Amino acid sequence: MKFIEGGVCAPTGFLAGGVLAGIKKNRTKRDLSLIFSQAEANAAAVYTTNKVKGAPLTVTKENIANGKARAIICNSGNANTCNADGYDVAKTTCQLLADALEIDSDDVIVASTGVIGQPLNIEPIKNAIPKLIHSISENGSAEAAEGIMTTDTKLKEVAVSFNIGGVECKMGGIAKGSGMIHPNMATMLVFITTDCAISSEMLNVALGGDVKNTFNMVSIDGDTSTNDMVTVLANGCAGNEEIISKGTDFDEFMKALNTVTVNICKKIAADGEGATKMLECEVEGAADDAAAKTIAKSVICSSLVKAAMFGADANWGRVLCAIGYSGAPVDVNKVSVSFKSKKGEIPVCQNGAGVEFSEEFAKEILLEPEVTITVKLGDGKASATAWGCDLTYDYVKINGDYRT
Amino acid sequence: MKFIEGGVCAPTGFLAGGVLAGIKKNRTKRDLSLIFSQAEANAAAVYTTNKVKGAPLTVTKENIANGKARAIICNSGNANTCNADGYDVAKTTCQLLADALEIDSDDVIVASTGVIGQPLNIEPIKNAIPKLIHSISENGSAEAAEGIMTTDTKLKEVAVSFNIGGVECKMGGIAKGSGMIHPNMATMLVFITTDCAISSEMLNVALGGDVKNTFNMVSIDGDTSTNDMVTVLANGCAGNEEIISKGTDFDEFMKALNTVTVNICKKIAADGEGATKMLECEVEGAADDAAAKTIAKSVICSSLVKAAMFGADANWGRVLCAIGYSGAPVDVNKVSVSFKSKKGEIPVCQNGAGVEFSEEFAKEILLEPEVTITVKLGDGKASATAWGCDLTYDYVKINGDYRT
Repeated sequence: MKFIEGGVCAPTGFLAGGVLAGIKKNRTKRDLSLIFSQAEANAAAVYTTNKVKGAPLTVTKENIANGKARAIICNSGNANTCNADGYDVAKTTCQLLADALEIDSDDVIVASTGVIGQPLNIEPIKNAIPKLIHSISENGSAEAAEGIMTTDTKLKEVAVSFNIGGVECKMGGIAKGSGMIHPNMATMLVFITTDCAISSEMLNVALGGDVKNTFNMVSIDGDTSTNDMVTVLANGCAGNEEIISKGTDFDEFMKALNTVTVNICKKIAADGEGATKMLECEVEGAADDAAAKTIAKSVICSSLVKAAMFGADANWGRVLCAIGYSGAPVDVNKVSVSFKSKKGEIPVCQNGAGVEFSEEFAKEILLEPEVTITVKLGDGKASATAWGCDLTYDYVKINGDYRT
Repeated sequence: MKFIEGGVCAPTGFLAGGVLAGIKKNRTKRDLSLIFSQAEANAAAVYTTNKVKGAPLTVTKENIANGKARAIICNSGNANTCNADGYDVAKTTCQLLADALEIDSDDVIVASTGVIGQPLNIEPIKNAIPKLIHSISENGSAEAAEGIMTTDTKLKEVAVSFNIGGVECKMGGIAKGSGMIHPNMATMLVFITTDCAISSEMLNVALGGDVKNTFNMVSIDGDTSTNDMVTVLANGCAGNEEIISKGTDFDEFMKALNTVTVNICKKIAADGEGATKMLECEVEGAADDAAAKTIAKSVICSSLVKAAMFGADANWGRVLCAIGYSGAPVDVNKVSVSFKSKKGEIPVCQNGAGVEFSEEFAKEILLEPEVTITVKLGDGKASATAWGCDLTYDYVKINGDYRT
């Protein structure tokens, strides 16, 4: 497997693009994106578990109930959530796009991201659809990635090539992250394409299995969004023998999917609202998988750990504290903690108590843009990794006046 | 019942004081406090549920196993947690104080607050105990309250007088709050005194019942401290007939206790680290008590709601979002939300969708130092209130470099 260029357009048969439709005033970036598969694709998606769900999710769920889709349309600047007419607006968006593309309306996946509770005006979308469908091309992944950004500061795209039964397949993804990121059996907005042939049933198995260890292990701010969705389109254009059951080919597919999703997770974490650094918490030696995940997420979610990391302060007591209140079974007297980055690794706690360490070296390690907090437990053999970011002045600034 | 002066010294038979022992370098406030009951008192306490527990909690739990205590000693500047010799240091502290006061060592409640994982040197405490026991007086509540402050900016004390069977009783409390505040069946450090005669069994019932609706409904930053404790000493000096069972007198006692604890909750919330305003979330019409509490806490804990309140931004979509991911059963289409303060009240959402409102008036309401978010559900008759504060630049500043 290797990383390649091209994002969601890397796989054969996918076009993408984005335009500025003017959905939110003052926006200068693109705000309406389209991903289009030239062949009918199998589709799978996972959605937010938030009980307040964006109207686009309801429509998407209906549309891909048959496991098929051709196009993904997504606007930023407005979440189309908690609006009395939200469902109708999302339906109309699908219909307008389908008419323009001459496809079925229920082959459209629709998504929205932005402010909750402000009516989404269909007019700018309606007016922009003609230029949107002309914008798509084999080189349009970055434009589509731009069109779904909210407070993101960086485009998020990735692609890999991999081998299924001697046939080269490709997979690509784009994502938006930044704030309201604390997925729970779902995630932020992530659109993945592949030309690998895989049945929609196995595509669902693959996606459902993967998100537990990837997107559900990311947290920026503990807030689970109303509009989270990850969706994968598999159009089979690579020409491999369709994957219809578990086995070697499915394992290869899972590896490719996991490579793409972990890469996106780290990009989302690194570009969390206001973040100056990406944090990774690796937990080893946990009693079971659930305990490992719970502890890793508890550390990554702690406001106090996050603020200490912003200050490059090796305040490991806060890591212990977050382990202790996680609710997971843990023998506190067997906990060891170290901080690690490109500059090296420094043990700060062994068997539940502090060890002497150089504050200067710790600071040097923690000033790096990617920091790993390693937690070793003495409870068993399970491990897990979670990703997040530091808590900074800019997080407060961005969210103190985001809406107006 | 009425509010009175005097804090923990308001009840008859209690003396308090505090001194600067020099536990943490550069501190200019007092850092070692003592509350002393001239008569043997019944004692009850609740502790943090964090699995990482401060050594002082272990010692306190042993010492009040018999339901009796005479003195509370508490230092700030060091939590005495995650230290190999922590238990011995806490035990020695009790012994040194008991010798000086000529009481039993197991009549001492010991508490610590501050940095986790740095050995607590017994020497400054040992040296300060003579002047500490000379510092206590009937006017020393404020000094004791100062000695337990960490990043608190305000002294927290309160006292009330109430009537049990025709006898005037008094109750007072001091607290430290500020950061790492997200109690779970326990709380931050709160010391309450009363001269009311009540059995230690009923004192435990009273405290255990009260904290569920008070301290456990406060969150500053979602981090449950390792050193949380609320303790009540009841020395019986008021001369009322001892409360030994439920009934009118017990109900009166509960009212007094609730008045003291709610007052302290609000003070802790208002003085959360970096806070510019106190937030209160009132939930009505919930399916049951658990749902009401879960929703109220979810709203008060949301980083996005907290940051919006800092910016006085009526971003009610974030309130809906927090209700939705709380995990509580809720019919989203029946949710109404309004913002309220001394300036008035403004409805912003009805039946799960936005209503038109004046942004100017909303801003005026949200600029006040105490803001209530009222959530009305259509699911049942249960209600709950939670308290918290906004998320500000100063929270990040305080916690980005607290330890060094």
